Amino acid sequence: MTPSEPTPLPLGATIGILGGGQLGRMSVMAAARLGYACHVFAPEADSPAMQVSAAATVAAYDDLPALHRFAASVDVVTYEFENVPAATMAALEGRIPCRPGPRALAICQDRLAEKRFLAEAGVPVGPWRAVHSPEELTAALAEIGLPAVLKTTRLGYDGRGQAVLRQPEDALPAYERLSPKPLILEAYIPFVAEISAIAARGVNGALACYDAVENQHRHHILDLSFAPARLPEAAALEARNNVTRVATAMELVGVVALEMFLLSDGSLLGNEMAPRPHNSGHWTMDACLCGQFEQHIRAVAGLPLGPVTRHADAVMRNLVGPEGLAAWPSLVSRDDVVAHWYGKAEARPGRKLGHANRLLPLGSLAGLDDVTACDGI
Amino acid sequence: MTPSEPTPLPLGATIGILGGGQLGRMSVMAAARLGYACHVFAPEADSPAMQVSAAATVAAYDDLPALHRFAASVDVVTYEFENVPAATMAALEGRIPCRPGPRALAICQDRLAEKRFLAEAGVPVGPWRAVHSPEELTAALAEIGLPAVLKTTRLGYDGRGQAVLRQPEDALPAYERLSPKPLILEAYIPFVAEISAIAARGVNGALACYDAVENQHRHHILDLSFAPARLPEAAALEARNNVTRVATAMELVGVVALEMFLLSDGSLLGNEMAPRPHNSGHWTMDACLCGQFEQHIRAVAGLPLGPVTRHADAVMRNLVGPEGLAAWPSLVSRDDVVAHWYGKAEARPGRKLGHANRLLPLGSLAGLDDVTACDGI
Repeated sequence: MTPSEPTPLPLGATIGILGGGQLGRMSVMAAARLGYACHVFAPEADSPAMQVSAAATVAAYDDLPALHRFAASVDVVTYEFENVPAATMAALEGRIPCRPGPRALAICQDRLAEKRFLAEAGVPVGPWRAVHSPEELTAALAEIGLPAVLKTTRLGYDGRGQAVLRQPEDALPAYERLSPKPLILEAYIPFVAEISAIAARGVNGALACYDAVENQHRHHILDLSFAPARLPEAAALEARNNVTRVATAMELVGVVALEMFLLSDGSLLGNEMAPRPHNSGHWTMDACLCGQFEQHIRAVAGLPLGPVTRHADAVMRNLVGPEGLAAWPSLVSRDDVVAHWYGKAEARPGRKLGHANRLLPLGSLAGLDDVTACDGI
Repeated sequence: MTPSEPTPLPLGATIGILGGGQLGRMSVMAAARLGYACHVFAPEADSPAMQVSAAATVAAYDDLPALHRFAASVDVVTYEFENVPAATMAALEGRIPCRPGPRALAICQDRLAEKRFLAEAGVPVGPWRAVHSPEELTAALAEIGLPAVLKTTRLGYDGRGQAVLRQPEDALPAYERLSPKPLILEAYIPFVAEISAIAARGVNGALACYDAVENQHRHHILDLSFAPARLPEAAALEARNNVTRVATAMELVGVVALEMFLLSDGSLLGNEMAPRPHNSGHWTMDACLCGQFEQHIRAVAGLPLGPVTRHADAVMRNLVGPEGLAAWPSLVSRDDVVAHWYGKAEARPGRKLGHANRLLPLGSLAGLDDVTACDGI
């Protein structure tokens, strides 16, 4: 059955975006190219997304009158991060279509819901236990063993809100640091590589999926993505299938990223997901005709999904803090690199200032080691 | 001699742009990706460029206090069209670097100056005469012959401000319609094709040139560009050499487009030029790693010029008026087309609303006829 075409948002319509960071900024620019204006709602003035948007509201996420005015000024709402307060979404949902939709948000704001959802969607996950007390932690450790990772169930990102437990003595201090928030204990997965993939789902249920990539982190922040992942074909296909299952099961409208662990036997375990454009998909901006930001906007606007074919291999490097800034003169001189800067005024340590995509001939990445593939970017 | 590197505009600096149309809009988005904010100055509120710019001034080009405030708020000024009043540029030039520079503007605002300049730069041009009276027109026609084209020397574009003279009786009515503005009579060139090419020149004199393209017009507005032009190699090279000569002779900082006539013997005559990103260069946005808008901003910002290598063949179609708008549903469904929309509220006849780039495999365009090359875009 061919999915029926939805009625798309007409040219010139306005898309509301909650969140003013770089993901919003790149979404705004993709929307502008598609002929849509954007209205960005965020608490921070002069945010990266506001610098390029047609309209902006600087207000707190619990400012109901501001949210209502925002809803009245736009034709559809999306967000650049999944930790938008539930009350904010509730204030908008009765007034204006919100995409990717409430289910995505509810699942992705809670690691327990996420684990249950992944398993139900048919994506294998590693052992985990909910932890609400020191006693539950002790019991969970007895079942799961060491090493393990203790995480808050909500509002964690880039390694924040988590602790690695290597020996029994690590348990209580970690519990005390992270509680009284609800916690989850996850088995430490001895992974060979971290893999991620991004799928899009349209209003009409149409699906599209980008090639899976291989990610490397530095100081708990994504450092490099290699596209495509240097994986056996079966594993690469399974990574794509996993994220596509997620998009379908979530009844998503937009894009979703799924991070997975590759085990030494070639199998994959689902780890985390995000129902939005994702840092590990930035390579699509230059190596595909339709990048993830355009894809997200297409889905949200009810347009047909765009082509996800990769026309080049790519290595994406995040440009973080003073070190990222220092790379600028060299990056602008490269003829194989497209750098994207986020318009942030200060280069604080750990702050993502931009990213660089190095493009390589199609099929060449598989034969290169990491250093050669990066070639100094 | 390797040109020495200029000091580039630092990340986060602000680029002022005179003019709020689509060329400004696409320049703003290129600048944003490079990490610069833009301040757009134009008389029209809610212009395409202002929808995506960090700051905007809505004021007349002769509003000196507004121009002075604008100059104080930016680090460099450029423009999206060469018909900025000279007094406007004079008000800015003492206060802030203006690029591509006064020489480019003076030459390109006057068809007589343009013809003289092209000849001096080593670009052959067809016969022409200045016309200030009916008597001069009669004398010029006697020398140049019919058919010929009578044009105002200033402020013409998209076929406005000109008349084709086919028989002696056409002369006086055309003169009366176009005068008392200063006029130029140009021989009608029996061209085989219109060719254009775009070159960039950096602050340090570095040069880069995109492949020459073949243009087709409809109702005096550019309709199609075929990239690369289907030309003998010598002519394609000469087209690039011509525009590179122009960039050098003009002491340009930015990009310049040169339109040329291809004659049946394979030679080229220079026709018109524009010291800015040009409609016939829109294909570069998707078929080159660094498109013409990024290239212009790189030059203006003192960055190294970007790579002009073409990684695909391309056909660009302008999306004009109601007909262009009607193409929207079909274009968003294509997996070989990137469409760029300008955020214009009304689809008036003759108004450029956007453009579509169809990408084709490298080297495939030469073997295709026009209809096949366009494939319905």
